[in-house]
Amino acid sequence: MGTQPTLEDIRQAHTRIKPFIHNTPVLTCRAIDDMLGATLFFKCENLQKVGAFKIRGACNAVYSLSDTDSQNGVAAHSSGNHAAALALAGQWRGIKAYVVMPENSSAVKLKAVAGYEAEIVLCKPTLEAREETLDGVVQSTGAAVIHPYNDYRVICGQGTAALELCEEIPGLDTVMAPVGGGGLLSGTAIAVKGLSPQTEVIAGEPERADDAYRSLKAGRIIPVEDPDTIADGLLTSLGDLTFPIIDRHVKDIITVSEEEIVAAMRLIWTRMKLIVEPSASVPLGAIMRRPQDFAGKRIGIILSGGNVDLDALPWIGQEAGHGN
Amino acid sequence: MGTQPTLEDIRQAHTRIKPFIHNTPVLTCRAIDDMLGATLFFKCENLQKVGAFKIRGACNAVYSLSDTDSQNGVAAHSSGNHAAALALAGQWRGIKAYVVMPENSSAVKLKAVAGYEAEIVLCKPTLEAREETLDGVVQSTGAAVIHPYNDYRVICGQGTAALELCEEIPGLDTVMAPVGGGGLLSGTAIAVKGLSPQTEVIAGEPERADDAYRSLKAGRIIPVEDPDTIADGLLTSLGDLTFPIIDRHVKDIITVSEEEIVAAMRLIWTRMKLIVEPSASVPLGAIMRRPQDFAGKRIGIILSGGNVDLDALPWIGQEAGHGN
Repeated sequence: MGTQPTLEDIRQAHTRIKPFIHNTPVLTCRAIDDMLGATLFFKCENLQKVGAFKIRGACNAVYSLSDTDSQNGVAAHSSGNHAAALALAGQWRGIKAYVVMPENSSAVKLKAVAGYEAEIVLCKPTLEAREETLDGVVQSTGAAVIHPYNDYRVICGQGTAALELCEEIPGLDTVMAPVGGGGLLSGTAIAVKGLSPQTEVIAGEPERADDAYRSLKAGRIIPVEDPDTIADGLLTSLGDLTFPIIDRHVKDIITVSEEEIVAAMRLIWTRMKLIVEPSASVPLGAIMRRPQDFAGKRIGIILSGGNVDLDALPWIGQEAGHGN
Repeated sequence: MGTQPTLEDIRQAHTRIKPFIHNTPVLTCRAIDDMLGATLFFKCENLQKVGAFKIRGACNAVYSLSDTDSQNGVAAHSSGNHAAALALAGQWRGIKAYVVMPENSSAVKLKAVAGYEAEIVLCKPTLEAREETLDGVVQSTGAAVIHPYNDYRVICGQGTAALELCEEIPGLDTVMAPVGGGGLLSGTAIAVKGLSPQTEVIAGEPERADDAYRSLKAGRIIPVEDPDTIADGLLTSLGDLTFPIIDRHVKDIITVSEEEIVAAMRLIWTRMKLIVEPSASVPLGAIMRRPQDFAGKRIGIILSGGNVDLDALPWIGQEAGHGN
């Protein structure tokens, strides 16, 4: 698996992708600070291209390929933000992107990926079907596979968000990110620990998809079984490249209930006027659950993305519609 | 009424309020640019303190008062963002703020104003009752009245948003703002024309509250009758201080239907991941209505505010709740 990437690798990734991505703003909110007794700095990757940090990793991976290795295009299976990110990065480089998507993907997501001129290959909505279909695509096209998180090029790309955050806001006590497959968290941990070893890295994870929490406690990867959370970006399990980095650098993983995720999301919408997806709200939910652990601290939070269905918000249920 | 303010007055206001307010980010969106064939720069006053540009004018007015003139506090009637802004500015200066609010104000708004330690005086929800109640407050307290828009100190404060925008993004062909009472638009016009005389200033206004459009055509103030628009920040009519500035500097006012306002709002939410209120969406609605007039141009847009009721979004009706 090779040596774990270092801060220097993340700096190289940053140089590579900087012309293409937004250096997203870091925003603060006095009302939330007062409520929690801490000072929070939100790195707004919801305002990033494709609406999520995922473009950083996809862009770094696509531009890390040699001309020869990229000539047959790139491929991945994904039903989420990685699909759109890989499609856009492929469009930028002028190479073909093949995206295997489950046939029950939402129309919105399919449209977004198609809008970036990717070739969409539909399959049955099972992991087995997705992997088999991707294998078939690779065999027939020769495309290079870009895994959504278990890939050092992707991990280093995702780490550039924390690099920008820590360089803009020095002296953070803690940096927090959500954890699903661990691409964002492992890249964040390498960047933060490389720049500032005394800064703690802590993740938030949904209770209902708590494989990273359990894996960290056990010291080995324990895949998630039947994950079921509103934080749909965090359904995946750690990979064999992300786990060792997280195991080495991440101090703690705090699990958060569905209600806490929605409360944190609504707080960000209401007070910060930012549209964030449930996954992005998990770290704030962790602070709201254990405010005493964070009191008085300067905390950076990666707001990972903002892709939500505006017609199906978690606080507007069927009942709300009936009652009015 | 005195001489109209100049760019220099807006610069002084900026120096005065800069320690208190956010220099809000200017964001761009490739997808919207591609859709409209123009290059748009959004000045995000929805991310401003109190969630709207209104804090700029209120803060400038409050800090323009001498110690003597401010010792009995400040007062206004308002059911909207000016109430919260005046309350917060009063809190900053350590003086009392009296806010006359109609008794049918939403609980959310009352709570926000009360949270800034203002003294709320409730009255019947008519303009007459609001003015009478405010007169009573002033007589009994000696507080200084800060009008929400027909006040040069407020106008100059509001103009600082455009000042920041034009200094950060030089060479704009057009700057756009919404128009209600005209405080934001007149301040914007003075800043823009002072910095860059060749830049056009254009406003967006709801068709259902089109007094500024009709006033500009007629060359005199024509107050709005029975305004009824989702853009609840734009229900007021121009004042005798804002009208002459707008008449002098503003090239055009484009009226926008309710459907166009909602479409523009939803586009900003979906593509930019920003929560903006309907009023803030009116200028983009104007461009979407007449894209041929704006093709190829570099356009600055003041996104005026982001205070919306998340439980009552315009695209989620009763029907939507029933059907799902």
